[in-house]
Amino acid sequence: MRVSELVERSGVPLPTIKYYIREGMLAPGESTAPRRADYNESHAARLRLIHALTGPAHLSLTQVKAILHIIDAPEGDISDQLARAMIVLAGTAGGQDKIETATPSYPRAEKVVPLLGEEYRADPPAVALLEEALTALEDAGMQSDPRQLAVKGEHMLAIARSEIDAIPHDPAEAVQYSVLGTVLYEPLLIAIRRLAHHSIVANRSPGR
Amino acid sequence: MRVSELVERSGVPLPTIKYYIREGMLAPGESTAPRRADYNESHAARLRLIHALTGPAHLSLTQVKAILHIIDAPEGDISDQLARAMIVLAGTAGGQDKIETATPSYPRAEKVVPLLGEEYRADPPAVALLEEALTALEDAGMQSDPRQLAVKGEHMLAIARSEIDAIPHDPAEAVQYSVLGTVLYEPLLIAIRRLAHHSIVANRSPGR
Repeated sequence: MRVSELVERSGVPLPTIKYYIREGMLAPGESTAPRRADYNESHAARLRLIHALTGPAHLSLTQVKAILHIIDAPEGDISDQLARAMIVLAGTAGGQDKIETATPSYPRAEKVVPLLGEEYRADPPAVALLEEALTALEDAGMQSDPRQLAVKGEHMLAIARSEIDAIPHDPAEAVQYSVLGTVLYEPLLIAIRRLAHHSIVANRSPGR
Repeated sequence: MRVSELVERSGVPLPTIKYYIREGMLAPGESTAPRRADYNESHAARLRLIHALTGPAHLSLTQVKAILHIIDAPEGDISDQLARAMIVLAGTAGGQDKIETATPSYPRAEKVVPLLGEEYRADPPAVALLEEALTALEDAGMQSDPRQLAVKGEHMLAIARSEIDAIPHDPAEAVQYSVLGTVLYEPLLIAIRRLAHHSIVANRSPGR
């Protein structure tokens, strides 16, 4: 298809498409004549992917580039990919500063991790986001009740386990699944939690 | 304390403090002399709260103002508060546009809600965020496996139930807890999920 059709189908403006190509986020179309290039289904799919990453996943363009790079050039096994993706994504909630600190410390997270369950490990950089979330709760004057933490730890572990069990066997697919699943299941889980709150309250209301 | 001490202790610059006062987000200090006002512990606590809401919770200033208003002037019972907070927060992930549409429709969410479990209700606006999260997954070419959705639904319901059971009995406290808990537990859950992924992969690695 011509670039005008790609614009039409994807809803992404031409200058943005040119920008993505310049930045190496989107492969250039195949030259069929001077000033004319041909685009195919893979270009449309890539634009949808970029849209998904910049939208609900709240990633910056720098982070999207890094994630696309991990997907395009997988290195090492799944656990390496997950670790690399986690370092990129740790920036989403502002954790990057802490990771770049020479000797990061996670005093709140280190106290909380044992309360989550015995499977949990307090390893950086995964633990940096936890430290930040706990600091925010503390700043807002909210306590993290140990029993509540145990409930969250137990049930999030069950969800995480089912997600990891579903990782595809094909290595290239596995990387894409792991990286996208880390980012795109977050808004899904948040949405399900809010719907659960609403449903519990709404189901109880008639009995009040 | 004088405003200079409030700046020093909170780390919030003076122009920002003045801005919060102008916008009604922070109570003015008590005038003790011309051009001199006295600030107390409640001002410091409020600044910590605003910092927590604008930071990891990723709220815009408009949303922070709306949340502070719900906390400061509670109306109706807890389920009203939760509903009002949910409408404000639905904007966090871009859901607001959909809510403001005259006849919003949630085709993906309506198919998925029954898969989450029988307690779940597909009521707006709670369902708008789910629709958006599902659209992003679809755009990225990821499928929502029904078994995976059932696992997420079951475990998020357990977490949500434990959170609602912990709502304080005092009405003013209950509002603050519900609103802040909705926002500030999200980064906590996300952090716990990432730590769970990491822990599962790391615990398995030696056996590979």
